[in-house]
Amino acid sequence: MRKPKIVILGAGYGGLLTTVRLQKMMGFNEAEIVLVNKNNYHYETTWLHEASAGTLHHDKVRYDIHHVLDSSKVHFIQDTVMEINKDEKKVILEKGEVEYDYLVIALGGEPETFGIKGLKEYALGITNVNSARQIREHIEYQFAVYQMEEEKNDNRLSIVVGGAGFTGIEFLGELTQRIPKLCQEYDIDQQKVRIICVEAAPTALPGFDPELVNYAVSQLQRRGVEFLIGTAIKEATPEGILVAKGDEEPWEIKASTVVWAAGVRGNSIIEKSGIEAMRGRVKVQPDLRVPGFEDVFVIGDCSLIINEENNRPFPPTAQIAMQQGEVTARNIIALIRNMPQLETFKFDSKGTICSLGDDDAIGVVFGKKLTGMAASIMKKAVDNRALFMIGGTSLVLKKGKFNLF
Amino acid sequence: MRKPKIVILGAGYGGLLTTVRLQKMMGFNEAEIVLVNKNNYHYETTWLHEASAGTLHHDKVRYDIHHVLDSSKVHFIQDTVMEINKDEKKVILEKGEVEYDYLVIALGGEPETFGIKGLKEYALGITNVNSARQIREHIEYQFAVYQMEEEKNDNRLSIVVGGAGFTGIEFLGELTQRIPKLCQEYDIDQQKVRIICVEAAPTALPGFDPELVNYAVSQLQRRGVEFLIGTAIKEATPEGILVAKGDEEPWEIKASTVVWAAGVRGNSIIEKSGIEAMRGRVKVQPDLRVPGFEDVFVIGDCSLIINEENNRPFPPTAQIAMQQGEVTARNIIALIRNMPQLETFKFDSKGTICSLGDDDAIGVVFGKKLTGMAASIMKKAVDNRALFMIGGTSLVLKKGKFNLF
Repeated sequence: MRKPKIVILGAGYGGLLTTVRLQKMMGFNEAEIVLVNKNNYHYETTWLHEASAGTLHHDKVRYDIHHVLDSSKVHFIQDTVMEINKDEKKVILEKGEVEYDYLVIALGGEPETFGIKGLKEYALGITNVNSARQIREHIEYQFAVYQMEEEKNDNRLSIVVGGAGFTGIEFLGELTQRIPKLCQEYDIDQQKVRIICVEAAPTALPGFDPELVNYAVSQLQRRGVEFLIGTAIKEATPEGILVAKGDEEPWEIKASTVVWAAGVRGNSIIEKSGIEAMRGRVKVQPDLRVPGFEDVFVIGDCSLIINEENNRPFPPTAQIAMQQGEVTARNIIALIRNMPQLETFKFDSKGTICSLGDDDAIGVVFGKKLTGMAASIMKKAVDNRALFMIGGTSLVLKKGKFNLF
Repeated sequence: MRKPKIVILGAGYGGLLTTVRLQKMMGFNEAEIVLVNKNNYHYETTWLHEASAGTLHHDKVRYDIHHVLDSSKVHFIQDTVMEINKDEKKVILEKGEVEYDYLVIALGGEPETFGIKGLKEYALGITNVNSARQIREHIEYQFAVYQMEEEKNDNRLSIVVGGAGFTGIEFLGELTQRIPKLCQEYDIDQQKVRIICVEAAPTALPGFDPELVNYAVSQLQRRGVEFLIGTAIKEATPEGILVAKGDEEPWEIKASTVVWAAGVRGNSIIEKSGIEAMRGRVKVQPDLRVPGFEDVFVIGDCSLIINEENNRPFPPTAQIAMQQGEVTARNIIALIRNMPQLETFKFDSKGTICSLGDDDAIGVVFGKKLTGMAASIMKKAVDNRALFMIGGTSLVLKKGKFNLF
């Protein structure tokens, strides 16, 4: 009898956790497990703000996927997904195709630019290892060129961060630690550097506790960040951005670096494959399957689950993706073993911590508000936990964060 | 009685050595010594190829001038020289002016582009700390951007070095050591990187022993450098360069990085100040003074001295500049002390070593030909000697090169 074939697309938090749980729980002859990923490494999306600012080397932010795979149980294909053919139950890859009996779509998100003119062309994104390296080098290059110019263009030293959400604030925290070092490296007066954060919403970190938001904003302001809250980016240009409050006339902020950290949407492969979605996110069934497709699971940034407490979607996080991965692994096993019922996914929030640099953070953990060093230590514990969940102690020892204070 | 005022312009090898010799040999009340320099640091021009390639951090290539000055004897002015007024015996600075009784012009050289179109706009130069940092970051930025491009532009990974003279060859040596590390850093296949050296003369390292030239060229070729000898750069463009052999039709080499390492001329301040010169170099008297000006010495890259052995000018090197500094200091003292005669400068060549990276070099030292590790060790000894001459043992310990093998 042919073994059922499970194909997992994407080796992010959700996909990789599904894979390692499946390889642990399934017998050798029970199923064929295939993991498809563009790169041969997994990267910590939640640490990319550090690699982008240049405070943590990108090699600390990624690890070889083979390090956590059991090659006797999982077949790894390094390739790029082009499209999913649900009717023929196969996935079209750039260099081939792969058939499946059970599919897990864990392809991760993409930046959402909301159609703002010029953002795609002129703004950089904290999206993956390649883009993080580019941001780091782009900023450093501006500092290097600045010193060579006969007529100094101070806009080279201006950095705009679009969005004061989670990613924007965490990136700003790292940036304020990186800038003094860059100024020293290139003999530049730090007074000449501007960091401007533009946020369209009426507050930074919407959804966060207001007391914690105030703490975060004032800490970053103290380190020199200028906030333009309730102000929207209307357009990005080669010279900077145009912004406006409400309907007022847009005005220009000149800056050689614009980082767009404001929006994430689901993967465009979802729409390309004809799966019903909102901005690339599929409203999944309680068992995480796509409505109407008994053999396709969607987890992570491409899935959409409504939080019944406030009737809004849960934001896409590593935490929810990993919990979905656990449930997906168990549900696939239930299907293969013909168990009567699939498990219903329920998000169990352990809390949220937003880093503000190496030794500062804000957060709510198990219902308790934290700021400063305590929150920062907790943040690193959370980062280490994600490593532990996927790769056990050995991965924590290899890639963990132990510079606690 | 007013103390005579000695003003030294430039804190390169020649100017700084003149200054430290004067401060050592003169009594407290004998003269006022003023050193003028653009930066508060001295940099090792002969190490800039390392900082440019990124194999040595630029802070290792420079040191604070105050570290070697005796502030009770020398007054340091950090300012930029705009013009020398020989008739009123004063120097116009950007932020002021300074009068002199004796002047030492040791302003260093400038890149000579021989009027080649586009070189100034599109090529980078191994000229000073700022330009070295820019080259290092420019190359790294290309590698970072390459990985983000959907359609890979392999020209981003092409580096043209204009000139196979001393600086060009030394830079190539470092570059071949840096590229493998950059490829690893940015996950780039090293096969995609091209390093092309274009030299108009019929040989690399003109004037060097042909056996040593062959060794250098074949070592660099083995490491992947392509040489176009007897080929001139006709034009630099935003996309690369146009080259031609003799009168043939120019053809294009596409490359995102073009480093011009082919020409040095004297300082343009010389011409701006109405001093007779050939490409900014003054044919000085045997005592190193400017013909017709009893109180103005010119040393280093701005001076021109004919080598009687081949009737051609000595190439501007750190070695000759330092020897000139020693003689200049003694001659100024002779003038102040009303001694009957000034010393005649005679260049005493200790030899020349051209580095080919961290553990390889070619050279002729005390008449002996050297290649490989032996030459490389000798090169580092020469580098350390320059530190010793100016700053003594403490500077050697602080900035010296001891990674001998």
